[in-house]
Amino acid sequence: MTMSALVAELRETLPTGHLLVDGDMSPFTTDSSPGVAGTPCAVVVAITTADVSAALAWASRHDIAVVARGAGTGVSGGALAADGALTISLARMTDVVEIHPEDRFAVVQPGVTVDELDRLAGSHELMYAPDPASSATASIGGTIATNAGGLRCLSHGVTADAVSALTVVLADGRVLHTGTRSRKNVAGYDLTRLFVGSEGTLGVITEATVRLVPRPRGNQVTFSASFPDLTSAARAVSEVMRGAQTPEILELIDRTTANLIEDFSPSGLNRDAAGTLIGLLIGGDASTTELMRDLMEHHGAISFAAADDDHLLDARKKAFPALEANGMGVGWVASDSAVPPSRLPELLAFVEQESAREKRTVAVVAHAGDGNIHAAISASSDVDDMSRAHDLAQRIAQKAVELGGTVTGEHGIGSLKTDLLDIAFDEVARNVHHAVKAALDPKGILAPGRAIGVAGTR
Amino acid sequence: MTMSALVAELRETLPTGHLLVDGDMSPFTTDSSPGVAGTPCAVVVAITTADVSAALAWASRHDIAVVARGAGTGVSGGALAADGALTISLARMTDVVEIHPEDRFAVVQPGVTVDELDRLAGSHELMYAPDPASSATASIGGTIATNAGGLRCLSHGVTADAVSALTVVLADGRVLHTGTRSRKNVAGYDLTRLFVGSEGTLGVITEATVRLVPRPRGNQVTFSASFPDLTSAARAVSEVMRGAQTPEILELIDRTTANLIEDFSPSGLNRDAAGTLIGLLIGGDASTTELMRDLMEHHGAISFAAADDDHLLDARKKAFPALEANGMGVGWVASDSAVPPSRLPELLAFVEQESAREKRTVAVVAHAGDGNIHAAISASSDVDDMSRAHDLAQRIAQKAVELGGTVTGEHGIGSLKTDLLDIAFDEVARNVHHAVKAALDPKGILAPGRAIGVAGTR
Repeated sequence: MTMSALVAELRETLPTGHLLVDGDMSPFTTDSSPGVAGTPCAVVVAITTADVSAALAWASRHDIAVVARGAGTGVSGGALAADGALTISLARMTDVVEIHPEDRFAVVQPGVTVDELDRLAGSHELMYAPDPASSATASIGGTIATNAGGLRCLSHGVTADAVSALTVVLADGRVLHTGTRSRKNVAGYDLTRLFVGSEGTLGVITEATVRLVPRPRGNQVTFSASFPDLTSAARAVSEVMRGAQTPEILELIDRTTANLIEDFSPSGLNRDAAGTLIGLLIGGDASTTELMRDLMEHHGAISFAAADDDHLLDARKKAFPALEANGMGVGWVASDSAVPPSRLPELLAFVEQESAREKRTVAVVAHAGDGNIHAAISASSDVDDMSRAHDLAQRIAQKAVELGGTVTGEHGIGSLKTDLLDIAFDEVARNVHHAVKAALDPKGILAPGRAIGVAGTR
Repeated sequence: MTMSALVAELRETLPTGHLLVDGDMSPFTTDSSPGVAGTPCAVVVAITTADVSAALAWASRHDIAVVARGAGTGVSGGALAADGALTISLARMTDVVEIHPEDRFAVVQPGVTVDELDRLAGSHELMYAPDPASSATASIGGTIATNAGGLRCLSHGVTADAVSALTVVLADGRVLHTGTRSRKNVAGYDLTRLFVGSEGTLGVITEATVRLVPRPRGNQVTFSASFPDLTSAARAVSEVMRGAQTPEILELIDRTTANLIEDFSPSGLNRDAAGTLIGLLIGGDASTTELMRDLMEHHGAISFAAADDDHLLDARKKAFPALEANGMGVGWVASDSAVPPSRLPELLAFVEQESAREKRTVAVVAHAGDGNIHAAISASSDVDDMSRAHDLAQRIAQKAVELGGTVTGEHGIGSLKTDLLDIAFDEVARNVHHAVKAALDPKGILAPGRAIGVAGTR
């Protein structure tokens, strides 16, 4: 059968969804990564689980690769369209199916945005805790598929911790229900967690039951503390994380990033400080803030400021837009490693030392309390220079693993970071990943080559 | 090869572990369930991961079934020896490998008891939160394999939430390392969670990296509230769980259980109350306790008591020993269903109605805040009566699932509750479980027939 005949068959099969071809597909091919999208055979804009089921049954029948996508806010190329593959967009499945404030959960379709869910939860004095930087447009489905992080992870956990049940369409079109609405459940395997963060390689999520938490109450104080060197800042983080009361948020930006932000949108950041910590304290009083000041000054902070508004956090949130505006999006290589908090000084020292040695600009922002750094490594468009930048990203990942951490804390492997898999996993771990993948997607049609690096059958 | 030749080969293969046969095996065959143990072909008492690896390679080579066991405190028959199978005991692997208070994790061998780990954590003002009733003797490995619950789950999550990395020996003897020491990690699938709660059907855990949390500080107040009917008590629970400040612990015991406890060891429980709630408040003040009293009285509590010692919680912890002492261990059938907290009144009303209709004694204790009930259903030794008691357990599980919950909240399926799998899972979910099992244990030697009901090859 020709591809156009196949696509015609798919169009016939879809119960309610839209099928896009040719130029109409373009809004559904790229994501927020620097990767280059391929040309899909078609795009299904799903409206119902039945659409996704029909599309996957068709793809499975004809051995056609499938890329599922939410809002396209991922930065590791997980949602990039692939040549000849079917893209399935979940962005139009935007129903909030149920919300149960008394039991603190909501049932949503995957296209609901993170901020919309959090806003709805807020009307019941609850919140949806995961807050990736792209929360205004990021979809729940995409953030579950990637196990997205965010600033509030420090005190509320990652996306995985907020998911209690899923509806997933399997590679062959069958519909699987995982998990329960109860807080506890030990029947069978934790299939919910298996799909969270699997980046579309095991199935396509079409409904999620997510946990809501009480919106934190009490006095909110943001603070910033500037340090003459990154190691001191990282040591202060390590000590904060040993305390009984961890802040709601604890972020770090380095000098390069602070200057990019100030150039982009003046925010009162100290351009001369090697590192600035920005945090949020909730429920404390004046003495809580003073204790934080004392701790920061004890570790060498050269300035400390507190505020009762969000302008300090807003400055932190400008880091990614500022990087993009400064052309870092063209050639930059992103590192997303994470280590235990006490090892953050070593990881940051390594990044500083290597960037100095290579005379290469590296801009670091970090979810410091979680030990999760984002290092944007500059590179020119020269192939060799780009290759050396990638080498540095690999060395940072290797260092993070040696320190007990991971090659990616929240951005995922996607299609752009599969070179890190050999750093993250030994042969046994790779084999187990491949065995699980083969068990659930024997034809290898789902996101081939991505996340765990298993190529498809075509 | 005869079995004795096979066992001789195994003895040769073990690097350091002990091999027990015949009468010496008896301490390693039963668990805390009412199930009947089979006669294993041998028992390996492992000392190192290499022992477990050698034993599994041997078992895999010769297609011999394997049952792994910790301390034998499970109540669903997961650790019962099986006829002709090899039992591997992890109880002698008791090293605390590392403890990192600054990053709040510990690395332990599986035979370390839950209380021992919590005691060690306590010396750093931290705690290991999961606290199954059997914590004094339960092993970390066993509680991870079963994803054990406990009283503190309400505020700190279940065992799965406390596990960040595992060393697991696979069915063929290969050694897999999952997870990281960092707080965040999205590289690959969440294999750690896949093994947690898999009840020995996917691999044998030989080392675990577990999270520790700050030991809660502040004023500790226990309270009890007695109610004239279970529905009122359950409604009070539902309202408490809607509040911003959930108690550290919130338990429920019914009249039958209260009287069994008072007969076993007088504890000051109200013998006439249909239901008594027992809770722990941490960090509040007198007004916190008064708010709780008001809430309970608003929902019809006929008495309320507060104390600054643990005698109320100790009374709750006597429930299982009291049941055992009263002969309930002989014929009782245990139900362990869980529902969302707001559905607890319906589930308890169903249990009351059905037990009254059958004129059958049912003793209920519940991790009420988690919506997790333990109903001990009495039965005589008569086969038909026992069968009717099992039918009631199934109907309770079915009701829990209809209310959005699960057939087992913390005890697991083990070898004794596989009849509940058809209530918990539809055909697609069963198939996915079986596919994952086949991917990791293609010969089906690990805990055949248990947890997910897949029979082995022999």
